[in-house]
Amino acid sequence: MVPNPGRCERESATLRRQQVLDAAADCFRRHGFHSAGMAQIAREAGMSVGHIYHYFENKEAIIAAIVDRDLVRIIEILEGFRNAEDIIKAILNRVAVDIDTHTDARDSALQLEILAESSRNPEVAKITRTKDAIGRKLLGETIENGRRQRGLPPLPATDLDARIDVMIALFEGLNCRGVSHPQLNRDGISAVLDKVLRQLLED
Amino acid sequence: MVPNPGRCERESATLRRQQVLDAAADCFRRHGFHSAGMAQIAREAGMSVGHIYHYFENKEAIIAAIVDRDLVRIIEILEGFRNAEDIIKAILNRVAVDIDTHTDARDSALQLEILAESSRNPEVAKITRTKDAIGRKLLGETIENGRRQRGLPPLPATDLDARIDVMIALFEGLNCRGVSHPQLNRDGISAVLDKVLRQLLED
Repeated sequence: MVPNPGRCERESATLRRQQVLDAAADCFRRHGFHSAGMAQIAREAGMSVGHIYHYFENKEAIIAAIVDRDLVRIIEILEGFRNAEDIIKAILNRVAVDIDTHTDARDSALQLEILAESSRNPEVAKITRTKDAIGRKLLGETIENGRRQRGLPPLPATDLDARIDVMIALFEGLNCRGVSHPQLNRDGISAVLDKVLRQLLED
Repeated sequence: MVPNPGRCERESATLRRQQVLDAAADCFRRHGFHSAGMAQIAREAGMSVGHIYHYFENKEAIIAAIVDRDLVRIIEILEGFRNAEDIIKAILNRVAVDIDTHTDARDSALQLEILAESSRNPEVAKITRTKDAIGRKLLGETIENGRRQRGLPPLPATDLDARIDVMIALFEGLNCRGVSHPQLNRDGISAVLDKVLRQLLED
């Protein structure tokens, strides 16, 4: 077997970057974006500050990479629906999992911190809005494909866009609910959401 | 007319407190709860730091008062429905206003900052969770009264609780949408929300 040092190095760099992102996510979550410094992130990641700067220019670049990683996860989920025989059914079947993800305390804390920072930091706002636009576009295509499979008529663009915003609001709202009402009844909410999503997807 | 200095003093104190809350809300929104110091809040309010401490023990006490003020607003809205001939219709008629309030950039920024802080600060979490529980209880009573007026059967407690969480998630999610998608189509969303809320309230 021929050794491949180039590949190993790339893999190691990817791993190091992930390590920085995990450490930074923890710092942002626990202390807020403003209060978390590069030195603290370095300590948490077990690296030198210089090493962190080798991978990321500043905290905004780290946030951008965290948001990118999140977008990749969303794209994977939506791409996963593409091959489903019944896309709408596949979306509805995931509701319970989505509720768990969106009410997870650690994940909610990070999402809320990134949104709070977006509301005052134009650079971070640009990052989250770009991600949001890509997510909305893909979700729209997924819904349209699902409706086509079922022989449902295509939706006027403004109606589709509004349904997408309401669907995303529901799940982003669950991030908020997970913080303000951590004991929420997941099964009950799953049943209610199933009905609401049917209306948004099938009507 | 007999002068009433006691009353004047109380009114002036109330006004001063409001001034501090407005200044603090601005600071939290712009810099985040962690980064906003009492000195900065005092400067913004045009008072001395000692004066601020006369009204509020610490930043958590300020957040508690801001959350209280918000709760009073919610209670007023829900109390306003109480005398409506058709409570469900009155709720639906407010949807456009609610969308505007919840996607207002300044208000969203503050709500998200308070929630982000709640997810890492147990003292702030306690404040927001208490407010949330009161809000849920009142919303539940409002929905039940509305259904009774229309001769609709009462909902099982778990179903009602889940509908309440989904309704609140929708509006809290709009706070998030206002940040990630500020150009959202308010009219389109209003039409979609109307249908979703009908299902949640009337079904």
